[in-house]
Amino acid sequence: MSKAITSRAQDYSQWYNDLVLKAELADYSAVRGCMVIKPYGFALWENMRDALDKMFKDTGHVNAYFPLFVPKSLFEAEEKNAEGFAKECAIVTHYRLKADPNHKGKLMVDPEAKLEEELVVRPTSEAIIWNTYKNWIQSYRDLPILVNQWANVVRWEMRTRLFLRTAEFLWQEGHTAHATRAEAIEETERMLNVYADFVENWMAVPVIKGIKTPNERFAGAEETYCIEALMQDGKALQAGTSHFLGQNFAKAFEVKFSDRENKLDYVWATSWGVSTRLIGALVMAHSDDDGLILPPRIAPFQVVIVPIYKGEEQKSAIDEKVNSIVKALKAAGIRVKYDDSDQARPGWKFAEYEMKGVPLRIAIGARDLEQGVVELARRDTKEKRTVSLEGIVDVIQLELTAIQQQLLDRARAFRDAHITPVNSWEEFENVLDTKTGFVAAHWDGTSETEEAIKEKTKATIRCIPLNNPEEKGTCVLTGKPSAQRVLFARAY
Amino acid sequence: MSKAITSRAQDYSQWYNDLVLKAELADYSAVRGCMVIKPYGFALWENMRDALDKMFKDTGHVNAYFPLFVPKSLFEAEEKNAEGFAKECAIVTHYRLKADPNHKGKLMVDPEAKLEEELVVRPTSEAIIWNTYKNWIQSYRDLPILVNQWANVVRWEMRTRLFLRTAEFLWQEGHTAHATRAEAIEETERMLNVYADFVENWMAVPVIKGIKTPNERFAGAEETYCIEALMQDGKALQAGTSHFLGQNFAKAFEVKFSDRENKLDYVWATSWGVSTRLIGALVMAHSDDDGLILPPRIAPFQVVIVPIYKGEEQKSAIDEKVNSIVKALKAAGIRVKYDDSDQARPGWKFAEYEMKGVPLRIAIGARDLEQGVVELARRDTKEKRTVSLEGIVDVIQLELTAIQQQLLDRARAFRDAHITPVNSWEEFENVLDTKTGFVAAHWDGTSETEEAIKEKTKATIRCIPLNNPEEKGTCVLTGKPSAQRVLFARAY
Repeated sequence: MSKAITSRAQDYSQWYNDLVLKAELADYSAVRGCMVIKPYGFALWENMRDALDKMFKDTGHVNAYFPLFVPKSLFEAEEKNAEGFAKECAIVTHYRLKADPNHKGKLMVDPEAKLEEELVVRPTSEAIIWNTYKNWIQSYRDLPILVNQWANVVRWEMRTRLFLRTAEFLWQEGHTAHATRAEAIEETERMLNVYADFVENWMAVPVIKGIKTPNERFAGAEETYCIEALMQDGKALQAGTSHFLGQNFAKAFEVKFSDRENKLDYVWATSWGVSTRLIGALVMAHSDDDGLILPPRIAPFQVVIVPIYKGEEQKSAIDEKVNSIVKALKAAGIRVKYDDSDQARPGWKFAEYEMKGVPLRIAIGARDLEQGVVELARRDTKEKRTVSLEGIVDVIQLELTAIQQQLLDRARAFRDAHITPVNSWEEFENVLDTKTGFVAAHWDGTSETEEAIKEKTKATIRCIPLNNPEEKGTCVLTGKPSAQRVLFARAY
Repeated sequence: MSKAITSRAQDYSQWYNDLVLKAELADYSAVRGCMVIKPYGFALWENMRDALDKMFKDTGHVNAYFPLFVPKSLFEAEEKNAEGFAKECAIVTHYRLKADPNHKGKLMVDPEAKLEEELVVRPTSEAIIWNTYKNWIQSYRDLPILVNQWANVVRWEMRTRLFLRTAEFLWQEGHTAHATRAEAIEETERMLNVYADFVENWMAVPVIKGIKTPNERFAGAEETYCIEALMQDGKALQAGTSHFLGQNFAKAFEVKFSDRENKLDYVWATSWGVSTRLIGALVMAHSDDDGLILPPRIAPFQVVIVPIYKGEEQKSAIDEKVNSIVKALKAAGIRVKYDDSDQARPGWKFAEYEMKGVPLRIAIGARDLEQGVVELARRDTKEKRTVSLEGIVDVIQLELTAIQQQLLDRARAFRDAHITPVNSWEEFENVLDTKTGFVAAHWDGTSETEEAIKEKTKATIRCIPLNNPEEKGTCVLTGKPSAQRVLFARAY
């Protein structure tokens, strides 16, 4: 098989890269750290985006679009936010190229076209958006503002990986404005729940909802809520964040409103985002050594049909039958592809669609046709069985539902088996190195200890789970008193 | 009315700006030449985008995503393209900010973080895409590639106007690769027809299909096809372009394929795009002094319902009835809004939805309710009539269809009345200055004459219409022989 990829056991990291390339999700580009999202990967992203977009709209949000560039003076207005992103910003300094007098046919930056004020390519849009909201908000009647933006952002990263960490990525960023602290916190939590719902029920990846420690908080936030997922190699991945921004941005941009009593106050804010990084999470949560495994709800194709035939006569008999199956499946809202290309043999196609993670494969040959059956193969379990053409739409719908559930169950069982309470430093290091996964350990609550643990083990506090049970104990590192366990892990 | 706008007769240009702002389509931003697309404007764009996206997919295209940045060395590879865009490029030269030692709390560009090679923020993506296609294409089996991208692009403009000309704008750009010249030309024409279909049948704006003269061609194209629309002030607007790129980009990026006879040849290319500029065209084609007029097929809301009541009792009786109407309309796929907000009077709401161009308004009062009727008002004609609640869904569907048709008919009648054949220079100038619109005139076919006419009158050749009748004559400016009339106009 020309498409074979490195196995997970051999080299998990290489397996991931091989898979992303060979399943044609993405490609490297000529721009350092930037990727090309290939049509198959983009079709997956479109399905994810459309599902999320509907959830945002169902919770009262509308979309808008704000400029790609942030003037430096706005960028630096909220100091913590600026400090957090300053080191990874692409900066536009000029607005024109000109012919290079010393190199025929080449261009150079025109030194006379230097901008008076540099423009930051947005790493996130709080600054430009809050500078705009200032003009939109005067009274409590203008609130809440519930706006989302689908956009590209740029964060200059030194070490990049397809989907997981790229200099440019696609995401959505919600930016909301509220009259009260309570309402803003409610919104922050609502969107965390929307993310958890999406990641679990569409991507079939179970998540733990929690809050970040101050060390891991979004720059400029008062509280960062997150959902944390576990990959098959036992490393955690932050799948989405929802920030309660307090009045920080309102103060930085002087955004006040008059309340019902005509009293002026600063506006309360939230922001929340998920990105194409989720595709990386999806790949690493479900896939195997034969390629991608996609949950039916977001798979570009849910079913692929491959004909097996000799000669034109068999082919046209199969075509006729398949066309009616395709029609019935499409009418039932199932995304189906009939691959009757004559440029590849059935075996090659089987491998190809396994690599691409299509949930169900139907193979149909001349003898099957006579008997009124097809072969149905599940990508997740590799089970094959013969099913009757009669009632096949119902069978396929049931199988797709079963696959969606099975992927979530399998990932949840793996995740649950990899949350390990530990009570000593030796155990802590041992679990991290051998069993991997989340380590539930007591922590004395200080940033210093968190930093020291990260320094020693590369593990960070992924989150303090919501509704975390109180449990008195002593910190695994310092032995100081602790009121609860928190979840540590090595992470992407 | 606080929302009154400048009339078209008074100042067409100011009318346009007022309308865009007051209908809440867009807003100015803190970034020179960049706009904020507000939620109402973005909802309109989403409807346009979704309709176009479906048309692209129905004609076999898939979406993908390519990097925002183009390294300078790739940007300059296709010389004509580079030359055409060099003067309007935003350039990233650095990748980090740092604390400014001389200004506490301020940031400065870190001189140590200078890029080895500058990055151009894409003004169009041929260069980065053809550099990628090089890796995707080896054989005729890899062709055609039919890819579209929805993206933001940046062209540094000195004089900008909301939607019509902004430094950053949203668009789609199709980039296709083909094995033969004929197939590429067929694709170029297919996409021109898709654009014409969309602009006429969704936006209700009639267009003339044609080709550009070499002067007005896309930089790097062998032939540029276009659709040209006419605005109410008699100026033309290029609504979309589809380029036959020949083998120019394949040669610049060394993209060859082996054909069925195993012979190597350069790949043939097309590119085609429409942008948020279309919203500007939409505004100027249909709207009036009371605000926007939107064609039902793309209007964010097709129907708005305003209750007229005194006291809670009347209100809840109306609510009950309206809720069932809303349900029935939604079930019929009609986008409807019930504005029962108590923060504004009915008269204010009427003016607001006229400003926003909602095609149909339903007003319902307590007495209407008793009689089982509502008042139905059309935005396009301002006609009001009383209609029975029985069968109202059908009535509304018919009205929406009628409005869509009426807008197209009205715009077409205006356009047709503004295509004026002229046979002398005096007539040419006179029609341009007084009657305005397209002037169909003989031209000697030289760039020099085209330039001279532009210099004298600011009119350009908008296009040579497809299937233009042959008609011998003499050039309006030079008197030299001409084989056909071409369409001149002043343009946006």
